[in-house]
Amino acid sequence: MVTSSIRVLVWGENVHEQENPIVREIYPKGMHTTIAEGIAEEADFDVKTATLQDPEHGLTEEALEQTDVLVWWGHAAHGKVAAKVVDRVLARAWEGMGFIALHSSHYSRPFMRLMGTSCSITWREAGEKERLWVCNPGHPIARGLDRYFEIENTEMYGEPFAIPTPDEIVFISWFEGGEVFRSGCTWKRGNGKIFYFRPGHEVYPIYYHPTVRLVLRNAVRWAKPDPEKWIDSCPQIPADKAPEPITIKGPRIHKEGEAGFR
Amino acid sequence: MVTSSIRVLVWGENVHEQENPIVREIYPKGMHTTIAEGIAEEADFDVKTATLQDPEHGLTEEALEQTDVLVWWGHAAHGKVAAKVVDRVLARAWEGMGFIALHSSHYSRPFMRLMGTSCSITWREAGEKERLWVCNPGHPIARGLDRYFEIENTEMYGEPFAIPTPDEIVFISWFEGGEVFRSGCTWKRGNGKIFYFRPGHEVYPIYYHPTVRLVLRNAVRWAKPDPEKWIDSCPQIPADKAPEPITIKGPRIHKEGEAGFR
Amino acid sequence: MVTSSIRVLVWGENVHEQENPIVREIYPKGMHTTIAEGIAEEADFDVKTATLQDPEHGLTEEALEQTDVLVWWGHAAHGKVAAKVVDRVLARAWEGMGFIALHSSHYSRPFMRLMGTSCSITWREAGEKERLWVCNPGHPIARGLDRYFEIENTEMYGEPFAIPTPDEIVFISWFEGGEVFRSGCTWKRGNGKIFYFRPGHEVYPIYYHPTVRLVLRNAVRWAKPDPEKWIDSCPQIPADKAPEPITIKGPRIHKEGEAGFR
Amino acid sequence: MVTSSIRVLVWGENVHEQENPIVREIYPKGMHTTIAEGIAEEADFDVKTATLQDPEHGLTEEALEQTDVLVWWGHAAHGKVAAKVVDRVLARAWEGMGFIALHSSHYSRPFMRLMGTSCSITWREAGEKERLWVCNPGHPIARGLDRYFEIENTEMYGEPFAIPTPDEIVFISWFEGGEVFRSGCTWKRGNGKIFYFRPGHEVYPIYYHPTVRLVLRNAVRWAKPDPEKWIDSCPQIPADKAPEPITIKGPRIHKEGEAGFR
Repeated sequence: MVTSSIRVLVWGENVHEQENPIVREIYPKGMHTTIAEGIAEEADFDVKTATLQDPEHGLTEEALEQTDVLVWWGHAAHGKVAAKVVDRVLARAWEGMGFIALHSSHYSRPFMRLMGTSCSITWREAGEKERLWVCNPGHPIARGLDRYFEIENTEMYGEPFAIPTPDEIVFISWFEGGEVFRSGCTWKRGNGKIFYFRPGHEVYPIYYHPTVRLVLRNAVRWAKPDPEKWIDSCPQIPADKAPEPITIKGPRIHKEGEAGFR
Repeated sequence: MVTSSIRVLVWGENVHEQENPIVREIYPKGMHTTIAEGIAEEADFDVKTATLQDPEHGLTEEALEQTDVLVWWGHAAHGKVAAKVVDRVLARAWEGMGFIALHSSHYSRPFMRLMGTSCSITWREAGEKERLWVCNPGHPIARGLDRYFEIENTEMYGEPFAIPTPDEIVFISWFEGGEVFRSGCTWKRGNGKIFYFRPGHEVYPIYYHPTVRLVLRNAVRWAKPDPEKWIDSCPQIPADKAPEPITIKGPRIHKEGEAGFR
Repeated sequence: MVTSSIRVLVWGENVHEQENPIVREIYPKGMHTTIAEGIAEEADFDVKTATLQDPEHGLTEEALEQTDVLVWWGHAAHGKVAAKVVDRVLARAWEGMGFIALHSSHYSRPFMRLMGTSCSITWREAGEKERLWVCNPGHPIARGLDRYFEIENTEMYGEPFAIPTPDEIVFISWFEGGEVFRSGCTWKRGNGKIFYFRPGHEVYPIYYHPTVRLVLRNAVRWAKPDPEKWIDSCPQIPADKAPEPITIKGPRIHKEGEAGFR
Repeated sequence: MVTSSIRVLVWGENVHEQENPIVREIYPKGMHTTIAEGIAEEADFDVKTATLQDPEHGLTEEALEQTDVLVWWGHAAHGKVAAKVVDRVLARAWEGMGFIALHSSHYSRPFMRLMGTSCSITWREAGEKERLWVCNPGHPIARGLDRYFEIENTEMYGEPFAIPTPDEIVFISWFEGGEVFRSGCTWKRGNGKIFYFRPGHEVYPIYYHPTVRLVLRNAVRWAKPDPEKWIDSCPQIPADKAPEPITIKGPRIHKEGEAGFR
């Protein structure tokens, strides 16, 4: 049924794919397309894509209004995402849109703005093995998984990961080279559910990995908005609309129209 | 002893004081000065002030480097605070500087950036009574307080307050007109401790209130940095510096200097 | 459809109803029955009741196994709930069963055990007015509510409420007598979602209040288990089942069967 | 200066040391003594020990009243700790006493009661290597540490660790055999600060490890009580002591002395 489907927008920076033949070979239609195909494996997702190169990066008011969950992959061009588009993404997330930040998007503008921290990590590109442990086996994002899953060949991200304490940690990674990382973390910002998921470097075929794709689908399902979307823009509640009567006191009362009135 | 004092910088927007005679009458030296005097009542605080009108708003690299806790009051001119200064305040907070946002500073750029939410409230100016309840009586910010304290005559702020779940709530307000508000909340962002404290409209003499001043001193003491200041800028850990040996696998290894390398 | 209904068990202490004619007049079939009727107003809930007086308090292994969400009302007889039943309730909550503690159940054994704190409050019985503010308007528990709702005539509960920081606060109450209270709070313990909801003294007809009943239905829907129920009992992972090879080192290896082996 | 010293009580179960010659060889004076010696390396700690075999396990009202931070090691005899002593430890923690649970004390009664979860882990005894990463480099518990430290030879604990989301995570462990674990976690319960620290099996000489000892000292310093100790026992605030006047309404008012009155 159309009305109950979850509307997903996969946003890809789409820069490495244009510039790096290795990436183009792995992801000939762009990483965003492969990510979108992985999500679309379940029938109740209605999945679209958008890229940096689209007008307004494909993130117009209309596009966001019709998005339940926005999935974001960026790396080389974080600084090219227009500030007003970032503001728009945040406003829609506060309203309830889910936001899933993938891999190097820890440094994307929307994610950093949602976190309020530096989002720094340590890293190494040595094609090493990663094992992602499920720390929260009852969490809907871990649905269908065993105790862990592995990625044979990947970039390493290491702690300290400079994020606010997550509401919940779903995955922690073990790396062959000796590091660990909080690879699946959730937060809430306004009405919007936020998920960071580490796997996904551009020169490894990680978005073809069946468990990575399962986690993405689980995460989209978890992040879809609750029905309520009420969000305020700082409303005044005048004294005659106050729930209780107020005894106005003294001379220090601000008058509408005075200098400095909000 | 000089070395153990806590270095406080009180930042005031200093706009209402210039434009509104009522505010000038209440705070003839500016609200920032009164706030600073309230903090300086305890001998181990070394308190300075800065305003929007100062070069770089008085928030140069040097000034911030020498600040342990930054106290912020803004309202009419949030949009005039330069973006690069906001970035600088955040970077220093992540390093460990405490940040205390007062009253209408819920909508200040640094606070909104630290929260990642809309920070919306409801409000009313009717000179009504506020009663602040201590929800967390063992918290250092509530040190020396009884079960509650009152402000006879103030602006109302009401829920919903659009913030991420606080780490701890120290105060919840009851208002004569019938609303409630989470008036004292803490978070951590990077190494920096953040405190939001509601009292303080410009047309009421609230920063002369002895309990408000006590809370400010308690909050500054709570928010002072821990000794460690280590913060990362996304360091690479090369394969030959990895803690464990790595078996480099396959052809999908990214080479330094390739297009798209970070 | 039977298979998709949410199985709710409303547990009532059922003591005041037997001993206090005022309570019996208000709740002639017992408070648990009225609470259950309020939840059963939506067709997809399958609601049962149990009381302290039932064998094993009606909380046998079988009963709990068939319960998705347990709603708890207790007051005068907290100490009469058998320890092994409390252990059973906790084990089932960790597995995923939702647990909703009502009003004076802040001091019930299962709730105190789930919190790990004293759960103390302040209180007053003076038939005063309570106004519950929605702090989290997008939360599913607040679905269908306006900014606030009121209870004309109730017992007061005041801060400090000695609970761990809630994951989310849905309601904060304003009381006519001047207090405030975190009246709707959520936590997670294991896989189980926990909700505390303040309204509901025995000598006021609060469980007939349509908004209170709506909140209960919303809360049950929110607290229903996610599909995954995996829970561990401290499994050993032998060395030959470890994901990576281990170089056994030195003499300090514990042997199965030695004294002190777990 | 005596008055400013931190009073530490190290509690050891002291069972393995009596029964297992390997443990006795490593810890001839008992594990509790070695732990206490490690903490006492800094002059401002006043460190005592107590064991299961002492009257009331050495945890009398007087002993706890004079304890700022209680450090707990248990394993084989969790079930032998008297329920009333557990209640006493919790009450004192709520009042402000710090509580540090070591290693197998994840399953100790006081820790499980403070958490409200099953506290289950996975485990393996194979003398493997553990590397503890600092996730929160500005945290006082990590003071003086580098990015990580290692223990050559230890028992493994693996995720999922069934705890409530920690307030902060200080350490995550990497294990040679391929697992990860949240090895240093903080919570607050009432006024008391709680720290869980994983290292420390009885058949490895881990409490002689200089970094483990440094972490213990840092943790004790972090967990010491704030000055305020106010804790409630559910006080009634009578109507004539309410902050605001109350208009008593209707007949449904409970009378002191009626059946069912609290």
